[in-house]
Amino acid sequence: MYEDKLKDECGVVGVYSKNRKEISRLTYYGLISLQHRGQESAGIAVKDNGEIRYYKEMGLVKEVFNEEILNSLEGEISIGHVRYSTTGESFVTNAQPLVVHYKGGKIALAHNGNLVNATKIRDDLEDQGSIFQTSIDSEVIANLIARNYKYGIKDSLIKSFEMLKGSFALVIIYNDKLVGARDPNGIRPLSIGKLNGDYILSSETCNFDIVGAEFVRDVEPGEIVIIDDNGIESIKYKEAKKALCSFEYVYFARPDSNIDGVNVYKARVNAGKILAKESFVEADMVAAVPDSGVPAAIGFAQASGIPYDIALIKNKYMGRTFITPDQESRELAVRLKLNVACENIKGKRIILIDDSIVRGTTSKRIINMLRKAGAKEVHFRISSPPVKHSCYFGIDTPSKKNLIGAMMTTEEICKEIGADSLAYISIEGLIESIGMGKENLCAACFNGNYPMEVPKMGHKFVFEKR
Amino acid sequence: MYEDKLKDECGVVGVYSKNRKEISRLTYYGLISLQHRGQESAGIAVKDNGEIRYYKEMGLVKEVFNEEILNSLEGEISIGHVRYSTTGESFVTNAQPLVVHYKGGKIALAHNGNLVNATKIRDDLEDQGSIFQTSIDSEVIANLIARNYKYGIKDSLIKSFEMLKGSFALVIIYNDKLVGARDPNGIRPLSIGKLNGDYILSSETCNFDIVGAEFVRDVEPGEIVIIDDNGIESIKYKEAKKALCSFEYVYFARPDSNIDGVNVYKARVNAGKILAKESFVEADMVAAVPDSGVPAAIGFAQASGIPYDIALIKNKYMGRTFITPDQESRELAVRLKLNVACENIKGKRIILIDDSIVRGTTSKRIINMLRKAGAKEVHFRISSPPVKHSCYFGIDTPSKKNLIGAMMTTEEICKEIGADSLAYISIEGLIESIGMGKENLCAACFNGNYPMEVPKMGHKFVFEKR
Amino acid sequence: MYEDKLKDECGVVGVYSKNRKEISRLTYYGLISLQHRGQESAGIAVKDNGEIRYYKEMGLVKEVFNEEILNSLEGEISIGHVRYSTTGESFVTNAQPLVVHYKGGKIALAHNGNLVNATKIRDDLEDQGSIFQTSIDSEVIANLIARNYKYGIKDSLIKSFEMLKGSFALVIIYNDKLVGARDPNGIRPLSIGKLNGDYILSSETCNFDIVGAEFVRDVEPGEIVIIDDNGIESIKYKEAKKALCSFEYVYFARPDSNIDGVNVYKARVNAGKILAKESFVEADMVAAVPDSGVPAAIGFAQASGIPYDIALIKNKYMGRTFITPDQESRELAVRLKLNVACENIKGKRIILIDDSIVRGTTSKRIINMLRKAGAKEVHFRISSPPVKHSCYFGIDTPSKKNLIGAMMTTEEICKEIGADSLAYISIEGLIESIGMGKENLCAACFNGNYPMEVPKMGHKFVFEKR
Amino acid sequence: MYEDKLKDECGVVGVYSKNRKEISRLTYYGLISLQHRGQESAGIAVKDNGEIRYYKEMGLVKEVFNEEILNSLEGEISIGHVRYSTTGESFVTNAQPLVVHYKGGKIALAHNGNLVNATKIRDDLEDQGSIFQTSIDSEVIANLIARNYKYGIKDSLIKSFEMLKGSFALVIIYNDKLVGARDPNGIRPLSIGKLNGDYILSSETCNFDIVGAEFVRDVEPGEIVIIDDNGIESIKYKEAKKALCSFEYVYFARPDSNIDGVNVYKARVNAGKILAKESFVEADMVAAVPDSGVPAAIGFAQASGIPYDIALIKNKYMGRTFITPDQESRELAVRLKLNVACENIKGKRIILIDDSIVRGTTSKRIINMLRKAGAKEVHFRISSPPVKHSCYFGIDTPSKKNLIGAMMTTEEICKEIGADSLAYISIEGLIESIGMGKENLCAACFNGNYPMEVPKMGHKFVFEKR
Repeated sequence: MYEDKLKDECGVVGVYSKNRKEISRLTYYGLISLQHRGQESAGIAVKDNGEIRYYKEMGLVKEVFNEEILNSLEGEISIGHVRYSTTGESFVTNAQPLVVHYKGGKIALAHNGNLVNATKIRDDLEDQGSIFQTSIDSEVIANLIARNYKYGIKDSLIKSFEMLKGSFALVIIYNDKLVGARDPNGIRPLSIGKLNGDYILSSETCNFDIVGAEFVRDVEPGEIVIIDDNGIESIKYKEAKKALCSFEYVYFARPDSNIDGVNVYKARVNAGKILAKESFVEADMVAAVPDSGVPAAIGFAQASGIPYDIALIKNKYMGRTFITPDQESRELAVRLKLNVACENIKGKRIILIDDSIVRGTTSKRIINMLRKAGAKEVHFRISSPPVKHSCYFGIDTPSKKNLIGAMMTTEEICKEIGADSLAYISIEGLIESIGMGKENLCAACFNGNYPMEVPKMGHKFVFEKR
Repeated sequence: MYEDKLKDECGVVGVYSKNRKEISRLTYYGLISLQHRGQESAGIAVKDNGEIRYYKEMGLVKEVFNEEILNSLEGEISIGHVRYSTTGESFVTNAQPLVVHYKGGKIALAHNGNLVNATKIRDDLEDQGSIFQTSIDSEVIANLIARNYKYGIKDSLIKSFEMLKGSFALVIIYNDKLVGARDPNGIRPLSIGKLNGDYILSSETCNFDIVGAEFVRDVEPGEIVIIDDNGIESIKYKEAKKALCSFEYVYFARPDSNIDGVNVYKARVNAGKILAKESFVEADMVAAVPDSGVPAAIGFAQASGIPYDIALIKNKYMGRTFITPDQESRELAVRLKLNVACENIKGKRIILIDDSIVRGTTSKRIINMLRKAGAKEVHFRISSPPVKHSCYFGIDTPSKKNLIGAMMTTEEICKEIGADSLAYISIEGLIESIGMGKENLCAACFNGNYPMEVPKMGHKFVFEKR
Repeated sequence: MYEDKLKDECGVVGVYSKNRKEISRLTYYGLISLQHRGQESAGIAVKDNGEIRYYKEMGLVKEVFNEEILNSLEGEISIGHVRYSTTGESFVTNAQPLVVHYKGGKIALAHNGNLVNATKIRDDLEDQGSIFQTSIDSEVIANLIARNYKYGIKDSLIKSFEMLKGSFALVIIYNDKLVGARDPNGIRPLSIGKLNGDYILSSETCNFDIVGAEFVRDVEPGEIVIIDDNGIESIKYKEAKKALCSFEYVYFARPDSNIDGVNVYKARVNAGKILAKESFVEADMVAAVPDSGVPAAIGFAQASGIPYDIALIKNKYMGRTFITPDQESRELAVRLKLNVACENIKGKRIILIDDSIVRGTTSKRIINMLRKAGAKEVHFRISSPPVKHSCYFGIDTPSKKNLIGAMMTTEEICKEIGADSLAYISIEGLIESIGMGKENLCAACFNGNYPMEVPKMGHKFVFEKR
Repeated sequence: MYEDKLKDECGVVGVYSKNRKEISRLTYYGLISLQHRGQESAGIAVKDNGEIRYYKEMGLVKEVFNEEILNSLEGEISIGHVRYSTTGESFVTNAQPLVVHYKGGKIALAHNGNLVNATKIRDDLEDQGSIFQTSIDSEVIANLIARNYKYGIKDSLIKSFEMLKGSFALVIIYNDKLVGARDPNGIRPLSIGKLNGDYILSSETCNFDIVGAEFVRDVEPGEIVIIDDNGIESIKYKEAKKALCSFEYVYFARPDSNIDGVNVYKARVNAGKILAKESFVEADMVAAVPDSGVPAAIGFAQASGIPYDIALIKNKYMGRTFITPDQESRELAVRLKLNVACENIKGKRIILIDDSIVRGTTSKRIINMLRKAGAKEVHFRISSPPVKHSCYFGIDTPSKKNLIGAMMTTEEICKEIGADSLAYISIEGLIESIGMGKENLCAACFNGNYPMEVPKMGHKFVFEKR
């Protein structure tokens, strides 16, 4: 399709409500607000007086749930999950939350991130006789907790999480507690909010604004929070170098979220401003590839003094699925979603801003469309550095040969996509735009400096491929 | 609804096909033929070159599968399952086959029956750290096999089955073998057929006739059959007193099946003949409650010399679901499915044959309808003895207080349902009708003599209720 | 599929309820009871305080309607319709009732039957500028009524019906009246019932028994009944020779209905008895092709003294749709629906009774199945005469070359289907079995004596083919 | 819901393809591109060798059609239609195209607009005996054409259109021609495009860009175009003062369309610029209510020198349907679709641009949200004049008492919605922004000057309410 973007894998939300007031709706609205983090499947699990009920299905949040289902999901603690649509292994079996019976009762678990040692742990568990019914990391985590349960809630969590390598933001219903946890590097975000005495955990803070909750704080890297009637208990189970995913600011997170104290929209506008300084060019207008390029384009326009204008019109009624033209006219597929505002660009020199280039195919088609429609020049500016390396921590990166940034120089890419000029923001520029110091960010997809050892061939489908 | 019957829980089918010819269709037709054994969910799992794919969903076989799904389920070995519709725990999570990853690869498993020690085994496994995601016995069995896998295929099966107490007819895809097994008492049936060199396992033999396969033999009680390219290997892993479920002959099995060598239709006609001898009464016609009472009514008519005729007309387009009248007119609900052939019964003395009485509510409504329509006398004859005891081996019996045979004498029941006379076949009569000797049959629901120790409170939902 | 039967085209029901009590449910149950007359589409139209609402859709009655839809269809007058599934022109556009606005208000109309002069009338109307949106006769009738509306309700109906040639049983909501009408020959049935002061019109009387209504009388041939708060007004608008469709007794109608005073079940048993006299043969058992052959088989058994028994077992969970085997194994398709009770027929001489033979293909397969299963002799007896002529009055007869009775002698058919002997009931025998005199019955499909002139090439799809 | 907009009623598209190449896909992509004009139902009718086939259903274009349906809709001429979702009369019966049989063959017809004399014509037609099955104007038009057909194609169209009063852009399959027509005032747009020799008619030109067609010209007011193998024949059947709907530029049309020679995006940017001159105010940022306010906001920013920035973030995964919070928290419903970019607006003076205010309820909620999030000032600017009068030509305007512009002064509205200041563009300003002269535009919803006499109580549901 016309989107040529890296994909996050999941969003999670959790609610602890003493007074049980509309817990499933709070969770539902949370998932609606996190829908951009995953459109493959959605699920909610609720603890209601010692019983855990759940519902999960393939589809968007609004498609999966209806009034009847939500009404059947009332209780004191709930967790929710959205998962992104990959090809191949999109089965409802792999939807989350995962709900399991274990010696001490029931656990429900939802996970955003990716473990790099899941196969190893799974092998060990299978050596001890465990069986697995899904291909998701969550089942591995649930098994660990179940095996450690005898040590009590806290220690079972600590012992289990100490074994995990990789990224995880977790929300768990564990007996009568709501548990939140973040990996020691804090690669994936997780925040705490409060609404009328109820606690909410969410991958992003936009959720809190929307439901009217107050932001309390972020869960810290290597922290477990255990929430019950007595409030929040915090356990710092492991220290490590922080390595928050910088791509959350580039593309994944919603602009109305703050992640670890930094507003996403502002970071994007900043990136546009820095980009204007780093690679200014004379032009008649600054335009964005909608919607994700808009904030950086606004920043670029502000910093450069070149007016912000519109070059591409989105068809807002297109979803992900419609009958596509056949191969020879892929450009038509792009135009059905994104048409050129012809009259507005004729004879103009355009600075076109996008947040990233992954494969480059859509960029090429868009630039071609602009030219055909009469654009005099198209200068392409990208508010992230070239993506050159695979992510092992929850982002679905294509294989290297499909990653144009890994295969070509900027000059070659410029020629390939047919732009008059092409510039990416520098890694330093991106880090400056976020403003939290490079020591706190993971920029491995740009520079290959992974925060931990990564497998040679590991990827998320490793379990299916055995 | 108008059906007041005991329900079987499942039907299973398995196919081993060297030449991989249309294996999913053979399995599908098998499930279509076993649909009477379970209408809640249906599923097929197929092994295709080392991978196991499966599809299972709530609904009838013809609703669950379509051409596209069947085409995606081709391979060398397949198993299928139909499950009966209960209230409460009818989730797709509990549908079968169950497919699991374990140390040695993948296993798919489908089960007809009920374990009486599943909770105990599950407790033990959870003590060792296992987690459970469903509330079906099959997950317990899969865990046992996975833990024993290191002993090799045969011994892992033997060691696992030796731990099970209760009833089970199992079909399993285990690495590159198709496995069939029957519990030591042989409570649930399982037969072997052959079609052009392919092997078929099926809960009932009607399946073989329909697809044109040849009946080979029944799997014996306490036998494991392991089928691969070399044919059938048989293991007799445990000896025990045979205790085949006599209700298979009364109601569950299709009349065109033979179970352990006895034709079901013939057994039912015999029961009608014996009933005629045991409780003859003068009348103008012998009629059946359709469809299950028909064979015994034919037998009764033949033995008594009173003509067989029709008193009740079925609406063959009614399924299980339609909009029902409200409570005060439940009789209308019955009549929509089963109307009286008024003209044919006016002024007549009717001997009405049914296979069993469970709650008695429908019997009462039918007799009332016949009287209103002008029947002079209604003599009710039942081709099974009164059901007085719960089954623990795979039949869903209502609680004792809803079991009219457990709560009232025959005289009281006769009065309650409004018949002119009521008679059940004797236990001896039923056993004689089957003709395999009482030492081979389980008649526990009639006489309380269970073939093994049964739990005090065990029932199939035990896992959910914890 | 395995059914090789002539098909009726429709069933109609109407309700007039002063007190508006659950009128949509009464109509719904009526359609459920008439489902055998048409399984393609179902619809209900209701007049509620001057407004007419309706709902119609492809599918079985229980599939088309749900609680919510029924609740939205309350009012004072309602009509309902079921239509049989043909190939080709099964669109919801052609579903009934038809609801139209005309000068005087709104009319809703449902029709069972077939007009032989619909094309001619339609041509005339189009000459006057009318347009047509469907290919059903009902639209022609509605146009006539609308054009005649100025003459008042009665005269507009009389003038309109006088122009119609063919068969029709009609129910109409016409302003604040419920109208029922039957063509002058009374080819299609229509009866009047009463329930707590409400009037019900129905194609068959079984509907009345089921909902607890009292049978009042049949609408007479050439009669219009106009029902309102003042009761029933009757208009005899045209006299003609009665010509009730004899196939209603042979196959179409439910056995628990009475048509023009004759009980359908009794007529079928009588036909079996007469058949036994006309074509007795020595045998060990009399069996039926289920379900429609059963009453005649019971009659044959009673008259011949040969015991009634079961040779074929139906799969009651099969609907009309399932994935069928490919062409080379059509016998498998038959067996999935209808399997042989092998054990019961081995070595036996069977008299097999069916109600009719249309194409003969299924008969051939069944007889072949019985022989393979070990039947010693199969004597086929048919409780209707050979179908040799097309029907123009609402029955879907195949083209002559597919009508085995039109193409072959009985001897040839016997050989073709592989029976040891074959006999049909005589036309006289059939008429005797019904017992109302041949002057009152249409037997044109057997003897070619049509009650009126019929078109050379007319058929029901004439409108689509232009 | 959060959208408080006037709604257009329909979009139409037509294709004439000599070589029959993928005509249904061209039509489908056209409807996809016109989806913003109607989201209630979609339909396509195709003429294929003298037969007309069609498919129409409730829902979005991408929901209604699939590959199989499109493949069944190939032919030489096709028309398509999208209809907007109103409450109450949204039945598939009213979906278009309308396909009718008439004396001369078949006609398919799709209509954008509204007739003000439909009731009168319908009455006259009913006087002559016509019946009506829908409540759409198209059925009236089809009847007229059918009655005039004897005059030949051209004259039948001329005679029919001469009788119509109101607005209409029509596409018609009439025998072997594709016909397009526009009412004498040209109230609704219709344009002609060409692609590889095939002709395309479309409500908007964006469609041509997207499928790669070349814009030929607009159909003129009072013009009929008849397209066949010989090309386009033009008939100017009636002269009248042009009165193109100005709201097409304000909101309805896509910004990438040109209507009667004027680019919609440019007109909107112009309106923003004029608004900046008419009602400048000091502020820190100019922001839009997305998406429709964006072009005017860009224009306002350019003209005022105040930077364009983002204040509201849209959830792009929300469609029209999700489970809404109950009444007391309607603001949550708005925030789920449109959240405030809090960090970006804190302490800022905002000029917020929207295209129109209809009821004012959403404006009030948005301004309240901005204030709560810390906006120092909110100056609301509207790029259209106050909507004060009902439209009778195809726009669904709420009743006057719900039209805030008709009930309150600008000062009162400002107070009601809680803005620091409020200004609308002047009518002159709007006309200047479009640039085609007020003598060519209908601005009746702003100034009450209707281009023709309008009914006192007429509205589009007049047929249902009788």
